[in-house]
Amino acid sequence: MIALLTDFGEKDYFVASLKAVILSINPRVKIVDISHEIEAYNRLEAAFLLKAVAPYFPRGTIFLAVVDPGVGSDRKIIMIKGKKHFFVGPDNGILIPAAEEEGLIEVRELRAEKYFLSSWSQTFEGRDKMAPAVAWLSRGVPFESFGPIATGWEKLVLPAPSFLPLEIRAEIIHCDRFGNLVTTIPVQPFLDWFKEKKESGLILRCQKRRWPLQYVSAFAYGLSRQPLILPGSSGFMEIAWKEASAASRLGIKAGDKITIKVVKSRNNLNKNKAGK
Amino acid sequence: MIALLTDFGEKDYFVASLKAVILSINPRVKIVDISHEIEAYNRLEAAFLLKAVAPYFPRGTIFLAVVDPGVGSDRKIIMIKGKKHFFVGPDNGILIPAAEEEGLIEVRELRAEKYFLSSWSQTFEGRDKMAPAVAWLSRGVPFESFGPIATGWEKLVLPAPSFLPLEIRAEIIHCDRFGNLVTTIPVQPFLDWFKEKKESGLILRCQKRRWPLQYVSAFAYGLSRQPLILPGSSGFMEIAWKEASAASRLGIKAGDKITIKVVKSRNNLNKNKAGK
Amino acid sequence: MIALLTDFGEKDYFVASLKAVILSINPRVKIVDISHEIEAYNRLEAAFLLKAVAPYFPRGTIFLAVVDPGVGSDRKIIMIKGKKHFFVGPDNGILIPAAEEEGLIEVRELRAEKYFLSSWSQTFEGRDKMAPAVAWLSRGVPFESFGPIATGWEKLVLPAPSFLPLEIRAEIIHCDRFGNLVTTIPVQPFLDWFKEKKESGLILRCQKRRWPLQYVSAFAYGLSRQPLILPGSSGFMEIAWKEASAASRLGIKAGDKITIKVVKSRNNLNKNKAGK
Repeated sequence: MIALLTDFGEKDYFVASLKAVILSINPRVKIVDISHEIEAYNRLEAAFLLKAVAPYFPRGTIFLAVVDPGVGSDRKIIMIKGKKHFFVGPDNGILIPAAEEEGLIEVRELRAEKYFLSSWSQTFEGRDKMAPAVAWLSRGVPFESFGPIATGWEKLVLPAPSFLPLEIRAEIIHCDRFGNLVTTIPVQPFLDWFKEKKESGLILRCQKRRWPLQYVSAFAYGLSRQPLILPGSSGFMEIAWKEASAASRLGIKAGDKITIKVVKSRNNLNKNKAGK
Repeated sequence: MIALLTDFGEKDYFVASLKAVILSINPRVKIVDISHEIEAYNRLEAAFLLKAVAPYFPRGTIFLAVVDPGVGSDRKIIMIKGKKHFFVGPDNGILIPAAEEEGLIEVRELRAEKYFLSSWSQTFEGRDKMAPAVAWLSRGVPFESFGPIATGWEKLVLPAPSFLPLEIRAEIIHCDRFGNLVTTIPVQPFLDWFKEKKESGLILRCQKRRWPLQYVSAFAYGLSRQPLILPGSSGFMEIAWKEASAASRLGIKAGDKITIKVVKSRNNLNKNKAGK
Repeated sequence: MIALLTDFGEKDYFVASLKAVILSINPRVKIVDISHEIEAYNRLEAAFLLKAVAPYFPRGTIFLAVVDPGVGSDRKIIMIKGKKHFFVGPDNGILIPAAEEEGLIEVRELRAEKYFLSSWSQTFEGRDKMAPAVAWLSRGVPFESFGPIATGWEKLVLPAPSFLPLEIRAEIIHCDRFGNLVTTIPVQPFLDWFKEKKESGLILRCQKRRWPLQYVSAFAYGLSRQPLILPGSSGFMEIAWKEASAASRLGIKAGDKITIKVVKSRNNLNKNKAGK
């Protein structure tokens, strides 16, 4: 199986070109779209989504991820053999968080021209070099055939939160279709941190604004008058709003820094002038 | 075959997660996307689309529909065996109009945890419970294995129009990509009602505005200066505009009430100050 | 394999209906989406995309293209057997540039009602007539069975540029997801024309505005302060902006006429008051 993640959008011929090339080489392979709506050139968003979704794919899946502002330059194309999957894409870091999560076995540089299309453009190496390579890989060409072992590659580190006794400083890494704001705070560390503080209230701060924040385990248990924080399905805590877009209610977006602070009791907080 | 209908959008990892889970369990099943662009939380739109499209799918198709504002609460997940297809989704009514159209054989509550993912979140039961269940069902696990017979379920009734001798009162249930406004008026009853009135003209009323309305059997036969009413491909009459968006020309949207009224002759109407 | 190109959008049941009909007739055929986001009724855009992507698809692929403002009228439906692929769609020109590029073998009119759905609407012939026809074709029904040889068909000519010694007059035919502006200038003729002019600079003119224009072979080599012109992956030159949208920076859109002019030296140009 081959899974595709790009910033190509849905309206052009780009995604279809990848599929056409792949299916010309291996007509029987199954192709699954992860998303083609990554914000143009946003490597961090691509890396985050790939890491969130990769564990659910069957062993042996080949991920082709193309968010590639350096296309046509001398940036390399890399192929990674991980413990469970293969990852192919430009050497700009987007593959690394997902691949490191499962463990790297080997990284190679895609260089073997016999696995490229016979002519290639400098503006669409996804179609002309990477798509044929993943198709040949899916047909059984050995991983070692595609090029030499890579001696180094670009890193990309998803930003990590700081846990302090009474606050967490973090970042919004992704805003989903519903306006839920995915933070950089992993679920389990948050729950450990929050366990001894259940009697207290939480507040959310972003820039100079602050709001009372309700912890819930599921959307349905939330009040509808304030933001919620809950364990998200990607393994990170999310800021949400019941049946509404937290992003538009709060005016917070991907990339924004946030602070989550403990206050002694909800009552105290509610007495203060909270909210916008 | 498994067909997916959700409000997940295309930009996130949600749809890909469903597919990854399904294909991990049943690598050979065919997955077809109905739409992932249902308006967030809009159960009526989901129910309408599912009912419109289900009859065209092959016998045995399993529909997984997830528009699920109650995710993580104690709302049930139901599985319906219909006369021609299976339907799986949250117990909030979205499956019912499509399933009742073909006839229900049995409704079960999805409870058998051995068909869930080994760990599950409270924010994404589509991925963690429903997707594995439909995958196991597609692999041949008997329908009876997934849980007990349901003793009741949420109804959802698509709003019905009122036919009066000289007018029809109805509602816009869906606005499609072209700006065509799908009404709640089924085609055949409309044609029967209209048969004896062919000499007369029609007018469309919405709130306090009114327009002359031309009945045509196909877009191509319409004038381009006024709204058209024609038999839509979903089995309902549609308000349209030739090569333009009726929704933006008329300022009418899904959820709006409309009245279609007979007037003695087109000439009379056209003499009046009709339109916006 | 069947490849679909339509202006149906992603939010409705239209595309799913096509797939449901096709898979009911031929459950084993592979369906690939080229795009469903063609601008509504835009035949030129459909023709351009189909021509750009068709060569990458495997021999024998059946293209079903539906951008069909004349649906339900007496416009014909045609089926084309090309040298490498089949093309099916309304007789309004959208198939022609792609089919002529590879060479036509035979054109037939789709008329054999036994290959339609048993009942058909006048508003969705894509689902009711074309989808079943391509499904039967993919199952091996001979091309000759679908109707008589067509005696004529609508032409659609992609607009061609004029090459003058010191300028090229052309048009923007498509604006892609990144805001890159695809021109009507084929790559090789441009490179031949430009070869002897490498010492000179280029300027781009659109309406009364003008900008210095940098020729590069790949995005990565561009400056970020001015528009670029580079060989696009569809075989045409593109106006682009490094990691930004040329369309919004320049205010140019599909359909606009442009002129690319040679100036003696870049220095001269930069001294002038160029740009917006």
